[in-house]
Amino acid sequence: MAELDVVRSGGPGIRPESAQQARLLRLLRDLGPSSRAELGEAAGLSRSRLAVEVDRLLQSGAVVQDGLAASRGGRRSHRLRLSPRIGFLGVDIGATSLDVAVAGAELELLAHVSTPVDVRDGPTEVLSRAVEMAGRALRESGIDRPLGAGIGLPGPVRFPDGRPVAPPIMPGWDDFPVRDHMAAALGCPVLVDNDVNIMALGELHAGIARSVRDFLFVKIGTGIGCGIVLGSRVHRGVNGSAGDIGHIQVDRGGPPCSCGNTGCLEAYFGGPALVRDAMEAVATQGSPGLEERIARRRKERERAGLPLAVGAGGGSAAEAPGGVELTPEDVAAAATAGDRVALSLIRQGGRRVGQVVAGQVSFLNPGMIVLGGGLVHLGPVLLATIRTEVYRRSLPLATGQLPVVVSELGGTAGVIGAARLISDHVLEVPAPGGG
Amino acid sequence: MAELDVVRSGGPGIRPESAQQARLLRLLRDLGPSSRAELGEAAGLSRSRLAVEVDRLLQSGAVVQDGLAASRGGRRSHRLRLSPRIGFLGVDIGATSLDVAVAGAELELLAHVSTPVDVRDGPTEVLSRAVEMAGRALRESGIDRPLGAGIGLPGPVRFPDGRPVAPPIMPGWDDFPVRDHMAAALGCPVLVDNDVNIMALGELHAGIARSVRDFLFVKIGTGIGCGIVLGSRVHRGVNGSAGDIGHIQVDRGGPPCSCGNTGCLEAYFGGPALVRDAMEAVATQGSPGLEERIARRRKERERAGLPLAVGAGGGSAAEAPGGVELTPEDVAAAATAGDRVALSLIRQGGRRVGQVVAGQVSFLNPGMIVLGGGLVHLGPVLLATIRTEVYRRSLPLATGQLPVVVSELGGTAGVIGAARLISDHVLEVPAPGGG
Repeated sequence: MAELDVVRSGGPGIRPESAQQARLLRLLRDLGPSSRAELGEAAGLSRSRLAVEVDRLLQSGAVVQDGLAASRGGRRSHRLRLSPRIGFLGVDIGATSLDVAVAGAELELLAHVSTPVDVRDGPTEVLSRAVEMAGRALRESGIDRPLGAGIGLPGPVRFPDGRPVAPPIMPGWDDFPVRDHMAAALGCPVLVDNDVNIMALGELHAGIARSVRDFLFVKIGTGIGCGIVLGSRVHRGVNGSAGDIGHIQVDRGGPPCSCGNTGCLEAYFGGPALVRDAMEAVATQGSPGLEERIARRRKERERAGLPLAVGAGGGSAAEAPGGVELTPEDVAAAATAGDRVALSLIRQGGRRVGQVVAGQVSFLNPGMIVLGGGLVHLGPVLLATIRTEVYRRSLPLATGQLPVVVSELGGTAGVIGAARLISDHVLEVPAPGGG
Repeated sequence: MAELDVVRSGGPGIRPESAQQARLLRLLRDLGPSSRAELGEAAGLSRSRLAVEVDRLLQSGAVVQDGLAASRGGRRSHRLRLSPRIGFLGVDIGATSLDVAVAGAELELLAHVSTPVDVRDGPTEVLSRAVEMAGRALRESGIDRPLGAGIGLPGPVRFPDGRPVAPPIMPGWDDFPVRDHMAAALGCPVLVDNDVNIMALGELHAGIARSVRDFLFVKIGTGIGCGIVLGSRVHRGVNGSAGDIGHIQVDRGGPPCSCGNTGCLEAYFGGPALVRDAMEAVATQGSPGLEERIARRRKERERAGLPLAVGAGGGSAAEAPGGVELTPEDVAAAATAGDRVALSLIRQGGRRVGQVVAGQVSFLNPGMIVLGGGLVHLGPVLLATIRTEVYRRSLPLATGQLPVVVSELGGTAGVIGAARLISDHVLEVPAPGGG
């Protein structure tokens, strides 16, 4: 595959030489430009120790004096900030989309490019596109040497070696060395994780969970998964499979699930289950709102000259009578228009999600629940139902001050979180040979 | 209340002066007597740095040279070990029992005394007994100045200030300052936690989970709770209520629970639910095994001259026809004798516990499940049923190498864990004024 010609190895000296320097770099990343006094206090370092470490970081080029403060005259001391030459790549590979961003030293987005892909085209094809887009984003951003790249994948990942593990919707990816492949192509350190974990990290760094050390990020899309952040770190479990709540049983006598068990959460809710139930409701009880959406879809396809019967189907769409697809967006639109059947479907789904989340709240006693993923756009009824169920079903002590909220970052949570993932790594591990 | 006359404040200098010394002390606690080479390698310290820190610890009296090694001649270097003067108190307060132990520097039990109490007598009475027993245990152990005391309570505890929070089976204890009260009476630092968390710590230190950093300790007794150990630390959650799995819903349409909800795990299983179901089974379908136990109990009471009808009832016993109590032990005995009704009750309970534990396994992906608490004595059928349910219901990736095992320490897990709790604290926080 194409190597990325603009990327060289990370600039020498920018990576920390000691754990203390790493801590100062992470503080500057999270606090932004700071005075020496602020930085020393946050790091718990004496004035003299701080002076030594800051001098080294200034010499290495990782830290610079803030030019604006300097221009105000000699009385005020310069503020310190991370070098504007520092940047990280964040790559978010979805089932049908590819997002690549370059984040600056404080993980602010400098460039963000997005394109449709089909993850089923396999790793060689999709990762080649990612490298190509990384080159474009880097040129746009003015960063020529990213310190590292974080990558999110829509399936389970064995974190230590960055390989997918039997990912259900990614044929051809099982055990592919994504991390090593991309590290070679990009010429920088790479870490790979699943999409839910990187979205959680995005919300932790720049979203609604900024001030929260322990929270759950619940993604409701085609599948349902959970990112667990404890002590500001992602908890991955001993095999990296932590957070897979989609196959927790909500009812012993429930419907069969694709995993072979019965009554799993995903057998009740998520894209495919919602569309299945919507189609069934149209067929059995009728629904003016959903039927109108079907008619509208049919007209759109006729105008576009497309055949009415569509075979492909991304898993989250089902064929209506007459071969027209119905999507979760249709259910959302019908619900917004007040369709009672659509609203009832969303409420049922929300209750099931809330039931499982309530169990995890009693179990882990987190400080916040953040809801994200495509199905969050089903609207306020979903949020309200989940919230009610969590408050009703969890221990009062655990829900006394528990916000249940929607993701702030939406579509950029993944790339920001991917950049955060690799920056945590690069700004923690001292460079080889360093003190 | 009585102050403990044998206890003075911790010996000066035994507490660590720096984080590095604290780390060396914890390593000697967990590794036992070690050579300087072993210790330096485990601590990642250079030879010269280690020499400086060890000299300080030898001077303070916290560490001693191993006498046995010294007697073998001058060639071999002395082994280092923690002072035999170091000791910790572990106090485990149950609903009906009080255990107090003195643990040595490596948390080995030096003395262990136990007595029946009724926790409903209130904190003044029960804690007074605990102080009195601590004095007895200290005299027996030869330790005169414990470095600290860990205390476990059978209810929710606000960990930061060591006060019970609305504990359901501890009238009079709500918000009582257990930590401060005991610190004053014992003259040493005290930490208070709930019983399940300290049992988990006991298994981590000296039991079946010794080599496991992430595991769940599931206690099945009158109530059902879970100790969550992540990275060798207890996870308590933002309000300290983490691990309360007894009120996770297992079935929407289930029986009412004492908490006001329906279908909670404790509404299905645990001491009171098991006895309730056993009594109902005797009344509706008959059970030769359980009926024989009832007859035996009746004879025992007659021989002892006790009235047949007993009013008290500790919550986990119910009155059989004729006023005789039936207990979980009776169900266990009937099951061991092959009674089909008793076996079926245990299997049903095990399936419910397994269902909830399976959800937590999918969610957290731990490295081990340890089962403890009184109902574990219901026998191998309970373990087998829980194990089957967990393996069947959790993700294959999460259960590939997941041992589901019974607690090794049994009745001493609590006191050892309580000693571990306070030793983690004392051997971590540098003494005031220290470097």
